[in-house]
Amino acid sequence: MPVSSAIIPVILSGGAGTRLWPMSRPERPKQFLALTAAETMLQLTARRAAGDGFAAPIVVANAAHADAVAEQLSAIGSAPQAIILEPMGRNTAPAIALAAIAAGGGDAPLLVMPSDHVIHDLDAFRAAIDRALPLVEDGWMVTFGIAPDAPETGYGWIKVGAPLTEGVHRVDRFVEKPPLDAAQAMLASGDHAWNGGIFLFRADRFLGAIGRFVPAMLDAAQSAMDRAQRDGNCIRPDADAFAASPSDSIDYAVMERDDRVAVAPVAMGWSDVGSWDALHAISDRDDAHNATGGDVTLLDATGCLVRSDGVRVAMVGVSDLIVVASGNDVLILPRGRSQEVKRLLDAMKGN
Amino acid sequence: MPVSSAIIPVILSGGAGTRLWPMSRPERPKQFLALTAAETMLQLTARRAAGDGFAAPIVVANAAHADAVAEQLSAIGSAPQAIILEPMGRNTAPAIALAAIAAGGGDAPLLVMPSDHVIHDLDAFRAAIDRALPLVEDGWMVTFGIAPDAPETGYGWIKVGAPLTEGVHRVDRFVEKPPLDAAQAMLASGDHAWNGGIFLFRADRFLGAIGRFVPAMLDAAQSAMDRAQRDGNCIRPDADAFAASPSDSIDYAVMERDDRVAVAPVAMGWSDVGSWDALHAISDRDDAHNATGGDVTLLDATGCLVRSDGVRVAMVGVSDLIVVASGNDVLILPRGRSQEVKRLLDAMKGN
Repeated sequence: MPVSSAIIPVILSGGAGTRLWPMSRPERPKQFLALTAAETMLQLTARRAAGDGFAAPIVVANAAHADAVAEQLSAIGSAPQAIILEPMGRNTAPAIALAAIAAGGGDAPLLVMPSDHVIHDLDAFRAAIDRALPLVEDGWMVTFGIAPDAPETGYGWIKVGAPLTEGVHRVDRFVEKPPLDAAQAMLASGDHAWNGGIFLFRADRFLGAIGRFVPAMLDAAQSAMDRAQRDGNCIRPDADAFAASPSDSIDYAVMERDDRVAVAPVAMGWSDVGSWDALHAISDRDDAHNATGGDVTLLDATGCLVRSDGVRVAMVGVSDLIVVASGNDVLILPRGRSQEVKRLLDAMKGN
Repeated sequence: MPVSSAIIPVILSGGAGTRLWPMSRPERPKQFLALTAAETMLQLTARRAAGDGFAAPIVVANAAHADAVAEQLSAIGSAPQAIILEPMGRNTAPAIALAAIAAGGGDAPLLVMPSDHVIHDLDAFRAAIDRALPLVEDGWMVTFGIAPDAPETGYGWIKVGAPLTEGVHRVDRFVEKPPLDAAQAMLASGDHAWNGGIFLFRADRFLGAIGRFVPAMLDAAQSAMDRAQRDGNCIRPDADAFAASPSDSIDYAVMERDDRVAVAPVAMGWSDVGSWDALHAISDRDDAHNATGGDVTLLDATGCLVRSDGVRVAMVGVSDLIVVASGNDVLILPRGRSQEVKRLLDAMKGN
């Protein structure tokens, strides 16, 4: 590799989504669950960027999850150089700014990864990183582009532009959460990719961009880190200072505004496991297309996703059903409707 | 009423079926559950035969359920004259013999009722009892005939014969658990009834019949009662003596052999609640035909039976599903397949 320093993985563990309720809950969101393998998604993420060429990771997490992060990484022998515990969520741009400052703000490349995505083809991911690195060293900010296979309206899309080097292209345009017809058109076009939310850039380059586009954000992050409490590798940025930061995603705050932004298209079996349907799609399944986990008995069942972390689930004669039992809750819905979990949660709150 | 003594209800609480698993379990079978009302089926049964014309009931139960019987009856102010705790199950004929002996063996009419049936129209039931009583006093053994509405192969059927009095007929023939084509023919015939398992006869008449048809059964019951342990209203028949009794149902042992057997057809909203489908059929349902009990949230669900005695169940977009959560178990199957619970239980045992 032509870069002067090892890549520093920056693992973003701020998510607290409800889309995988009832297993995912605010106190134990998706990244801390073992949904796709024996290890949790946080553990898989840390393993994904470790070894030759990688420095110890920096993790940015919700302060409420400090113990879970430390325990899960320790369990796989990962020793983060810093665990930054956000006093509150300010979206991804300020979180990455904290990490870039913690990394020293120099020219070390940061590999920013959400902690709750799946990547099946690690070799493809590593190869894409290798392709992107020379441009990153040269000051480009790179996002990884996922080949779309559905007209997803919940993702950010990227129009892939002219090649800069073999396998890395200019970004022509970002399209955030398009309406369905636009998503269908982009899917059909063949020259669009999903924005996978995984980024590679130099720490100094990112901080420079933040300072240029959202100076109040850089000031807040710098001030929060200057006044942070430190205990071993644990960093608690100052709450008042960090609270002053605008809340924004890296996409809106930086990537869509900068003019040296590139995309590295990569087919690596990526999934954000954004729904129970998505989990069924990427899970190992039996001959009848059932994916099960936990104490589950099925007779004459086909196409079901059934997971339990507690109660025994026994089913006969059902098809294409999602059943998830966790703690004191059981969720049941047909496959294809798992985006309605939030609506169900609202109904349970008495709305 | 023309009879000399009050009717003694005999409540048979020996059932330990698995058809309503996971709510019904060996340690807490169906009769102890509140499936159709706020009160349990045992409590509803006791209430069904109380008040004017009825003496205190005699309950025959599995010794393992002694506390449940006493507590549930006490909770509704029912004071049984005897709770007979069977040391082991020997089917209904010996159980009723124990009760007839405990009743004194005289000419008091016994109203034998399973403890786990539903009767919606109490007035119709009482009227049928009134119609039957004169014949009973005269020595007839009467069963109540349920107007069939399906070709049930799991029930006993009765061919209704010539009238003896207004509303009470000779039994032409008993047909136990017929094959489907026979059941369909009987349903179509219009002159058959289901044997509801509810009987009215004098204690002495029943004991006489048992002595005539199965003398070893009468000997065993008499000996078990002679050597019983008694504690208040609690009677524990001698186990060795009772174990010597042949095991047989009242239908096979007596009713099908005796020549003075009558049937009182009655439309009283009867159900043996023999499956989750049966419970759905008799339950109050919402506009979308869902019957729910416990902590259940439904969105866009139709035709479902959903019951929980513990966990929260949340469902969206499903139809005609049976979901039962109890203790550490969740059962899920389509309506119409609830007879497959036993098969599922066998599969869970690793068969």
